[in-house]
Amino acid sequence: MTMIELIEKKKQNISLTQEEISYIIQEYIKGNIPDYQISALLMAIYFNGMTDDEVYYLTQEMLNSGEVVDLSEIKGIKCDKHSTGGVGDKTSLVVGPLASALGVKIAKMSGRGLGHTGGTLDKLEAIPGFQIEISSEDFLKQVNDIGIAIIGQSKNIVPADKKLYALRDVTGTVDSIPLIASSIMSKKLASGADHIVLDVKVGSGAFMKDINSAIELSKLMVSLGKKAGKDVVATITDMSQPLGFAIGNALEVIEAIETLKGHGPKDFQTLCTELTIEILLVCKNASSYDEAKKLVEKAISEGLGLAKLQAMIAYQHGDSRVVDDYSFLPLATQTIDLEYKHDKDVYVESINALKIGEAAMLLGAGRATLEDKIDFAVGVVLHKKVGDKITKGDVLATVYTNGKNTDEAIEMILDAYIMSNQKVNTKNIIIKTIK
Amino acid sequence: MTMIELIEKKKQNISLTQEEISYIIQEYIKGNIPDYQISALLMAIYFNGMTDDEVYYLTQEMLNSGEVVDLSEIKGIKCDKHSTGGVGDKTSLVVGPLASALGVKIAKMSGRGLGHTGGTLDKLEAIPGFQIEISSEDFLKQVNDIGIAIIGQSKNIVPADKKLYALRDVTGTVDSIPLIASSIMSKKLASGADHIVLDVKVGSGAFMKDINSAIELSKLMVSLGKKAGKDVVATITDMSQPLGFAIGNALEVIEAIETLKGHGPKDFQTLCTELTIEILLVCKNASSYDEAKKLVEKAISEGLGLAKLQAMIAYQHGDSRVVDDYSFLPLATQTIDLEYKHDKDVYVESINALKIGEAAMLLGAGRATLEDKIDFAVGVVLHKKVGDKITKGDVLATVYTNGKNTDEAIEMILDAYIMSNQKVNTKNIIIKTIK
Repeated sequence: MTMIELIEKKKQNISLTQEEISYIIQEYIKGNIPDYQISALLMAIYFNGMTDDEVYYLTQEMLNSGEVVDLSEIKGIKCDKHSTGGVGDKTSLVVGPLASALGVKIAKMSGRGLGHTGGTLDKLEAIPGFQIEISSEDFLKQVNDIGIAIIGQSKNIVPADKKLYALRDVTGTVDSIPLIASSIMSKKLASGADHIVLDVKVGSGAFMKDINSAIELSKLMVSLGKKAGKDVVATITDMSQPLGFAIGNALEVIEAIETLKGHGPKDFQTLCTELTIEILLVCKNASSYDEAKKLVEKAISEGLGLAKLQAMIAYQHGDSRVVDDYSFLPLATQTIDLEYKHDKDVYVESINALKIGEAAMLLGAGRATLEDKIDFAVGVVLHKKVGDKITKGDVLATVYTNGKNTDEAIEMILDAYIMSNQKVNTKNIIIKTIK
Repeated sequence: MTMIELIEKKKQNISLTQEEISYIIQEYIKGNIPDYQISALLMAIYFNGMTDDEVYYLTQEMLNSGEVVDLSEIKGIKCDKHSTGGVGDKTSLVVGPLASALGVKIAKMSGRGLGHTGGTLDKLEAIPGFQIEISSEDFLKQVNDIGIAIIGQSKNIVPADKKLYALRDVTGTVDSIPLIASSIMSKKLASGADHIVLDVKVGSGAFMKDINSAIELSKLMVSLGKKAGKDVVATITDMSQPLGFAIGNALEVIEAIETLKGHGPKDFQTLCTELTIEILLVCKNASSYDEAKKLVEKAISEGLGLAKLQAMIAYQHGDSRVVDDYSFLPLATQTIDLEYKHDKDVYVESINALKIGEAAMLLGAGRATLEDKIDFAVGVVLHKKVGDKITKGDVLATVYTNGKNTDEAIEMILDAYIMSNQKVNTKNIIIKTIK
């Protein structure tokens, strides 16, 4: 077996065997197969796809390339939630506490963001003092004590994916459904949860641009989970505009807290409710959709989710006063309202989520390289979303800035808004659930 | 312009511009683009192909990456002949002298072989003393003096192709028609001839396995040549079995000499005649096919081609007595006849050319790496070819060996012969000519 033969095989659309996929991953990690052969293989996979068996072997091989987290010391059903990512996505800060408040154990390892705004870890670190580097002993203890912990991902998890992803990123081979599925699922399976709820974003602001690809990816991930003995649910959700109103780390923490108080933006509130329902159902903490929905509504109205978030912040050494007083969060020195100045009334037809994300990044809310430092305070809060009517003098969005690239960011935000003279229909945030 | 964007573009089947192709080739040669990005691009090209314009830009860019040979000091029309390669291909040793004897200037730079048997240079070096490393001054003088020279290719010709080809070779991206066409034509155009006759082999023993691919490649190369202002003719010829009888360097020299004496194997004799006719026509040394054919037949019957080969050998310091006495060539210590031992009469249905080539390589006639030393004496002479009737006691082939891997080679040769109980139709060696 030589790597050239395996590339040829995949190129001719002949399935690779388990043994062949093991060879590729193991020898690549050892440095015995050069990047230029792997990138040729990846491009052949982009064009020819992979069979379900191939994706399963690849996922298992990546999963076994590093540490597999053992959560067996945590009592109860452990659930993980993963989003494929989008602009304004602070869902874990709401869904984690809600599900935990309703009896599900949330032992979540999360990643940092690259590009646009930060990842979940960055958002949590916007809370002064919040620690994300926790030993695995303390991690297990925390989940047993309070039912939830969100910490940084172990560096030893799925090293094969780290190496492959870095190569895909620079060789135009990121957007391959089997490669995406195996990358996500190898990490999720290595994280040790019993069940997994996936939030697969679709639309112009997401990785998956069209619904069919999102369905294909979702089905593949659900089946990979099942083969590995875990119940997996994938909820396909709309990302044709930013999620919620806030984009930027501290701003998103505020929005998450507001949502736990029952005052979240409609789309985001709905998304968090539905994902929590799926978690309750998959973990059998509720026996029907209706029962689950009532539980979630109660957890919000009685402040159980909020209390859980506050407990987690306190346990992880953060300043838990932020839950009641946002002035304990980092604040931008300047806010600028972007007003609609034309006489003619219009409707928001679309908001380019990627442009809004880039604007936030320009202001300092995201990082271009892993070494960049994030400014937690800055970002954008949208006041108008798709379908909203706009009249002269309305504020479209507010920019929170510490003076970095403000003009460029403002231009990009205004550029992101596309207006229509006619009424615009809005989309449901929840598109489809695949079980 | 970043390389990732260009890979994405090609992946999405959007044509690359001249500027983009220049950027890729120039920066790759400078070492500013890593192999892993180029191999991903090459695989995307394999799947999506290239437009005629893209191939032309690529060919020109590669051509201009190194030295372009200036043959203007040679009086008369200079013609180059190139074969896409096959097992038992000693055509240049016959066609070069014949065309030269009929007034065409043959200033040919050739390559060494890798795998199977040697290339033209290796075959010439089987002649004791023959020099292939000649200064360009002496090269031009030789062609002006005697009308023909076959020497080693300048190391400075088309460096971009050398680097790209080495990468294609290990990344499963060799068999892409646009990449093959640009690789061949950039070298041919850099070699400075006025016109080019291409021998495009098709069949199980060749690079092009099917006639449609061979036609596509031929048309593309002819059009690339025309765009560059050169007349190019591509003759598509059969390589479903080894060419002629002899495979192995000295053995092929003998067969070439026999063919110049008019005693060549029928398929090889026909091929050489037809290719020489095409050369005479494209160089306008004959005004019609019939006239050209008569000229070639005369050059053979009167020994003009043979005399030209002998003159070239002598000029390039080889022992020109080999033309009359084959004992001056390296001889194998042992010959083994492979007999047909069954009672039942059969017909040769096919001979797997690649297996015969591999058998010759096992005996030492070819090299696996560029550092390997060739044993010029060894090889195989077939006595039976496709369509021949075989009766008990007939010798299928004779193995010429110096004791290296003899048993394995014999097994492989016998394995290459597929017999039929029914009469088998033979194919014409000349399939089609594209002008």
